[in-house]
Amino acid sequence: ASESEAQRALQYEQTLMYGRYTQDLGTFAKDEAARLRLQEGDTPRPRRPSELLEYTQGHCGPCRVCALQCQRFLISKVGEDWVFLILLGLVMALVSWAMDFAIATCLQAQKWMYGGLDTNVLLQYMAWVTYPTVLITFSAGFTQILAPQAVGSGIPEMKTILRGVVLKEYLTLKTFVAKVIGLTCALGSGMPLGKEGPFVHIASMCAALLSRFLSLFGGFYENEARNIEMLAAACAVGVGCCFAAPIGGVLFSIEVTSTFFAVRNYWRGFFAATFSAFIFRVLAVWNKDEETITALFKTRFRLDFPFDLQELPAFAVIGIASGFGGALFVYLNRKIVQFMRRQKTINRFLMKKRLLFPALVTLIISTLTFPPGFGQFMAGQLTQKDTLVTLFDNQTWAKQGISDEFEYLGILEAWRHPRSNVFITLIVFILMKFWMSALATTIPVPCGAFMPVFVIGAAFGRLVGESMAAWFPDGIHTDSNTYRIVPGGYAVVGAAALSGAVTHTVSTAVIVFELTGQISHILPVMIAVILANAVAQSLQPSLYDSIIRIKKLPYLPELGWGHHEKYNVRVEDIMVRDIRYVTLNCKYRDLQQVLHSTKMKDLPLVESAESMILLGSIERTQVAALLSNQLSPHRRLLTLRQKVLSEDGHRLSDSSIRFQVRGTATSEDAQSGCPPPSSPHHSIPPQISTATSSGSPARPALRKPLKPAQGTAHPKAKRVRISIVEEMILGDKMTPAEILEWEEQQLDQLVDFSSAKIDPAPFQLVEHTSLHKTHTIFSLLGLDHAFVTSIGRLVGMVSLKELRKAIEGSLTGKGVKVRPPLASFRDSTASTTEADTTALRQLWDRHQHHPMPREAGPGDDD
Amino acid sequence: ASESEAQRALQYEQTLMYGRYTQDLGTFAKDEAARLRLQEGDTPRPRRPSELLEYTQGHCGPCRVCALQCQRFLISKVGEDWVFLILLGLVMALVSWAMDFAIATCLQAQKWMYGGLDTNVLLQYMAWVTYPTVLITFSAGFTQILAPQAVGSGIPEMKTILRGVVLKEYLTLKTFVAKVIGLTCALGSGMPLGKEGPFVHIASMCAALLSRFLSLFGGFYENEARNIEMLAAACAVGVGCCFAAPIGGVLFSIEVTSTFFAVRNYWRGFFAATFSAFIFRVLAVWNKDEETITALFKTRFRLDFPFDLQELPAFAVIGIASGFGGALFVYLNRKIVQFMRRQKTINRFLMKKRLLFPALVTLIISTLTFPPGFGQFMAGQLTQKDTLVTLFDNQTWAKQGISDEFEYLGILEAWRHPRSNVFITLIVFILMKFWMSALATTIPVPCGAFMPVFVIGAAFGRLVGESMAAWFPDGIHTDSNTYRIVPGGYAVVGAAALSGAVTHTVSTAVIVFELTGQISHILPVMIAVILANAVAQSLQPSLYDSIIRIKKLPYLPELGWGHHEKYNVRVEDIMVRDIRYVTLNCKYRDLQQVLHSTKMKDLPLVESAESMILLGSIERTQVAALLSNQLSPHRRLLTLRQKVLSEDGHRLSDSSIRFQVRGTATSEDAQSGCPPPSSPHHSIPPQISTATSSGSPARPALRKPLKPAQGTAHPKAKRVRISIVEEMILGDKMTPAEILEWEEQQLDQLVDFSSAKIDPAPFQLVEHTSLHKTHTIFSLLGLDHAFVTSIGRLVGMVSLKELRKAIEGSLTGKGVKVRPPLASFRDSTASTTEADTTALRQLWDRHQHHPMPREAGPGDDD
Repeated sequence: ASESEAQRALQYEQTLMYGRYTQDLGTFAKDEAARLRLQEGDTPRPRRPSELLEYTQGHCGPCRVCALQCQRFLISKVGEDWVFLILLGLVMALVSWAMDFAIATCLQAQKWMYGGLDTNVLLQYMAWVTYPTVLITFSAGFTQILAPQAVGSGIPEMKTILRGVVLKEYLTLKTFVAKVIGLTCALGSGMPLGKEGPFVHIASMCAALLSRFLSLFGGFYENEARNIEMLAAACAVGVGCCFAAPIGGVLFSIEVTSTFFAVRNYWRGFFAATFSAFIFRVLAVWNKDEETITALFKTRFRLDFPFDLQELPAFAVIGIASGFGGALFVYLNRKIVQFMRRQKTINRFLMKKRLLFPALVTLIISTLTFPPGFGQFMAGQLTQKDTLVTLFDNQTWAKQGISDEFEYLGILEAWRHPRSNVFITLIVFILMKFWMSALATTIPVPCGAFMPVFVIGAAFGRLVGESMAAWFPDGIHTDSNTYRIVPGGYAVVGAAALSGAVTHTVSTAVIVFELTGQISHILPVMIAVILANAVAQSLQPSLYDSIIRIKKLPYLPELGWGHHEKYNVRVEDIMVRDIRYVTLNCKYRDLQQVLHSTKMKDLPLVESAESMILLGSIERTQVAALLSNQLSPHRRLLTLRQKVLSEDGHRLSDSSIRFQVRGTATSEDAQSGCPPPSSPHHSIPPQISTATSSGSPARPALRKPLKPAQGTAHPKAKRVRISIVEEMILGDKMTPAEILEWEEQQLDQLVDFSSAKIDPAPFQLVEHTSLHKTHTIFSLLGLDHAFVTSIGRLVGMVSLKELRKAIEGSLTGKGVKVRPPLASFRDSTASTTEADTTALRQLWDRHQHHPMPREAGPGDDD
Repeated sequence: ASESEAQRALQYEQTLMYGRYTQDLGTFAKDEAARLRLQEGDTPRPRRPSELLEYTQGHCGPCRVCALQCQRFLISKVGEDWVFLILLGLVMALVSWAMDFAIATCLQAQKWMYGGLDTNVLLQYMAWVTYPTVLITFSAGFTQILAPQAVGSGIPEMKTILRGVVLKEYLTLKTFVAKVIGLTCALGSGMPLGKEGPFVHIASMCAALLSRFLSLFGGFYENEARNIEMLAAACAVGVGCCFAAPIGGVLFSIEVTSTFFAVRNYWRGFFAATFSAFIFRVLAVWNKDEETITALFKTRFRLDFPFDLQELPAFAVIGIASGFGGALFVYLNRKIVQFMRRQKTINRFLMKKRLLFPALVTLIISTLTFPPGFGQFMAGQLTQKDTLVTLFDNQTWAKQGISDEFEYLGILEAWRHPRSNVFITLIVFILMKFWMSALATTIPVPCGAFMPVFVIGAAFGRLVGESMAAWFPDGIHTDSNTYRIVPGGYAVVGAAALSGAVTHTVSTAVIVFELTGQISHILPVMIAVILANAVAQSLQPSLYDSIIRIKKLPYLPELGWGHHEKYNVRVEDIMVRDIRYVTLNCKYRDLQQVLHSTKMKDLPLVESAESMILLGSIERTQVAALLSNQLSPHRRLLTLRQKVLSEDGHRLSDSSIRFQVRGTATSEDAQSGCPPPSSPHHSIPPQISTATSSGSPARPALRKPLKPAQGTAHPKAKRVRISIVEEMILGDKMTPAEILEWEEQQLDQLVDFSSAKIDPAPFQLVEHTSLHKTHTIFSLLGLDHAFVTSIGRLVGMVSLKELRKAIEGSLTGKGVKVRPPLASFRDSTASTTEADTTALRQLWDRHQHHPMPREAGPGDDD
């Protein structure tokens, strides 16, 4: 019992702390953690100031002071960005390396099983097919049970989170575990899946967890803006340690997740990604996999004459074809998902047997890649990594055959087929892998699509390269030296172009340089990637945007290429003019009407219906709370009680109000954040507001211990309620008819906004703001809606929906552009138009006749 | 006479056009240009709609329709972004190549002269010294005369322009010519100057000129936001075609010029920079300088083992030392400029003889580099390009000597001195070049500091590399193979680190990869660059920011590394509370007071001094115009005339007001944009407002032809004034005492704001906005000041100055951080504090007692 009392006392202390509202919760938690830690540590009197120590103690004093200062220094440094980033990089490098090791072991096991059973083809097939099916099914099931949020790439979700939208459960430890284990199993199965997208998600979760962990040690300031900066850096780390590509990682993550990028965050990404990539590669050296730090897929193209100027058209062709291919991939991927959703019979069946779909897909794909079967025509026995190594190979396959080269024979053998040539193998590989990858990425396991697409692109580039080599056996430029064509270079270009087309990024070019360790093909790669982007962006959204739309996450479309009409559309053309609002002098009945007539989450608060001067915005829940509070049985009882009081001649004095030190609050009260109106006669000063008792007997309140999160409710919510005992005395003596009458009467009262939480600065735009600027502001500040004002008067509202419509309407319309008829008749200068002047003049004229009341002191009604 | 009349008629038409305000000037100019062009072209009736043509004409019709449509299509495409970017890339590549060619010729000429005079050392010295002195003096003089804005790097100015500040004359043809010719001469002199910064400026000017040129062809929409996007792309092109480094160019230009970067502009930079770099290198191939497209300073380091893991500490040392070196360079550069300015005698002397300083500096530097003199100890005969080629060389100089290698002997010879070793030469080179570069970049010619710093960094890296090679002659990792240390790799790392430290950028890493064509040293380079940045950023601002401060350009400092208190400082801590404002119901006397008491450019307009509801902002010039108009002699005469009118019983009827079709307006009236108040009795409908005559006889008005720019003044400025004839009749009959009395009387009138230009949406912040967010918003939107409001009430103002103080105060303070005492006692949640509620409550209470007047119609006084 004494323990529970102590607990209550602690909670009471916390309640007080929140009641005072002098510190935010983060700071409080930090201080508390620091206090507890110091109490447990070996410094006996941690809170004693160092100045005092220096004076009072002997020769031991300076040591202690020094130790204390060191400790403080360390604690203060723990919160520094670079410590956080180093830890993040280290952890992610370890995760990446461990996962790569586990995946390699899984793939090795499959190869070993397949190799060991070469006496019986059927057994071989069973092993080849069962192994990935089991792994994928386990991955899907495990993810489904532990954290369904871990499914898929994660980049679309990160893009949404970095826009400022809070997605629940996306950055938790559970999801982290599910994603890491699920991804390892999925990639270990040998399916055409990638680890790059999930790694962005894993790194972000790691950052979120690390940030929470470090905040326990103090010195670390919890702040939303800072968290978003850290998440942006984490995305860079994710890509960076996945490919050992720090620069490409930073750029790719910026392109994929951000709309606006703060250059001051740049170094964070570079720092963390470089550190992460460094550790990732150093681990490989320590593990004796590599002799020193080199690129992941090192190429050995000649440096002095990497390509001929006349080969550039071929590279351009790769770029354009990759653009179409990338768009097709996104389209195919989306259609597969939509087909699965629309087919009701399939859908119903799949909903019941959730693990059947992954198993089925894996079965089909692994059957087709079975090396003694169809797999022999598409190099089915190669893992993704081996495939890339062979595709980036230095040799030319078509002309000089493979038998000349002995070093690579083992792996390269897979591309040779006795009854067909390498071109057919490559074409079959590209076609099969294309739909397989598009299908495989729809499986509900943690997986990305970058790597499969990268491999397909490399194969396509290789195909073009081999064709060129066959066409010009001695190179094109034959006047002086003979420089043969390098098909491996084409593979690099193709890989960058196709992955760039699918993701709508240019930075894949940088990624291939870092992956291959050679930058000699920079111009072909850049040309191909830009062309691929130009084609793909005009046909389809990026894969991540496509997933965002499929998943119906909130998004804001990009302004397209060179749509000049954007500069001419203004907010007044797209805003909603007919909006519901709350006036300062309205009645509760008006609140009721507003709540019935609109679904808006934030309601504008204006001075009066005539002036329409915007004062702020009030949340829908707040309005509902105001209303329900006004009509609450609790208040009704209060009225009754007042009547009784006046009848009894102040029989119940203040002393009869009993306090109950309980340390618990009704969750309802705390959540609604809406206190009962404090009637002037019975308002008790807040400093003695120590007791919180349950609300009304009509609502059975769920009692649970006060969580810190609830403490963020309105401070006045802590005010004393009439104790339950008293209510029991009075009872509910009204009849339903009386209640109805009372309610009608209450609805006619003027609203008391003094207790409501009002956002004094909802984001405002002016009518003349251009669509371009609106888009900029919305995407920078991560807005959901903005009120449109004209000289302080509310005239309309723009939300993401209207903006989306305005942008997409003119983007996707077939010939018909949404352009207001008067758009071209406007001046683009910032001069005040007639309308503004008129409105101002009205206001001014009104002032001339009816000057504003001069007194503005706090008008106490008593 | 008839011609001048026609001109007048045209001007009259223009006046009308502006008076109507249906089109902005850009659109008008475009239409006009299109009309003129079509009139001159071969299509006889260009304005005829194509539908009519199809019906009325025979078989020739479709052809014409087709031609017309083709023409239209082409015109519409001219305005597309990609056409613009291709043109920009093409032009800049040509400029860059031509300039390189000219510079190479200049340097060749100097070498030839120096070589030809080898019989006489004195003559040789004269030639060596005179040549650069003449070139630099010419460059300085030419730039000074034609466009002083072309002096210096240009990156600081571009950063300011991209912040939204309009700098005059910085993007004109004159500046372009001055910069191109001045830069060619300056670089041709062989001084340690760079072309990279100026190229950013040249590309921006090129973009601005191209944009203006293309707008003549129509289809091109002039818009500030778009222009800034294009300028950002142009900066990338500038760096890209200077180094043939498209990726590095884009990243460097982003880091150097932007605070916030819109990812949707990314492709523009890449597209233009890639195209530009491509053309730049193709020109070299066509000119037979190169066999194919390769890097500018191609290196040939081995690929299989670029560096040992144990060499990394040496790379880290290079990074840290470069950080200190970079900070020292910036400090030295600034101190030289400040010394020159402070020393009054020097300053006065230099102001008189402006060309003396450049000549003197050139004389000193070229004397010291004279090869037979001191230059023999610092490889003085090498040009910047040759120096870089030798520093990036594959061979190790220290150990195996130079005589082994014959290919590079010619250039490498410069580093060898018979009486000293290569270490001393390198050290002397670094020390001498360091101060020489810092000094040379202060010369008032178009020049950058990137390349000199890059060379110094490379030399420092080489020095470390040679030391390592001497220390470990057989490499560090000796267990299996012997891989010797490559000092050239160290040179690459040093170059990236030092240039990164001076400019505070990470993207120099990418630039060196693209410059050398090898990416194998990616991790050492990244580590060194990041360390160099960390050190340099904590010691000094970047070179460009330093120049911005020296030049006193408006700027906003960056938020530093991990300054957590930024998240805790709020606008209310830094805002100016005591601001002057204009109320809607104020008198002219109040305006006078406000104008006397503040120097603010924008004055807030509030509803009343009690409510303080912010309605908008009004420019100072507008207020001054209102006031001067109220007290104008013109108006006084009007008053007199009214008196006369009432006395004479409407003797002067409307018919007596004579119109003079003059086509000229007083510049005063047009500029002030402030019309006389229209007295109700004599207001004349605007459609007959054709005459504008001079103002009052008291002010002799400067008559000049009406320029289009003046047409943007307030439309009402076009109203009829009382003709000069009439004024002569009335005359100025008041005595000074009467005038004073009249003015006093006028000052007591209420202000009529109906004619003033009011910005209805000045940028507003709330008190609780964090410094971090304020910085974000200011830097994104390029704000100069913002008003701070609380529920619509004006409570303060924040300008760049306050923000700068708040940020720099805590950045540079030695131990003392500017942090408001209450900062840590705040809740970071968005809950409404007591203050807000109180303010709202006051407003609400006031409403209860004094409801707002209900009528809001336009109150006509008559």
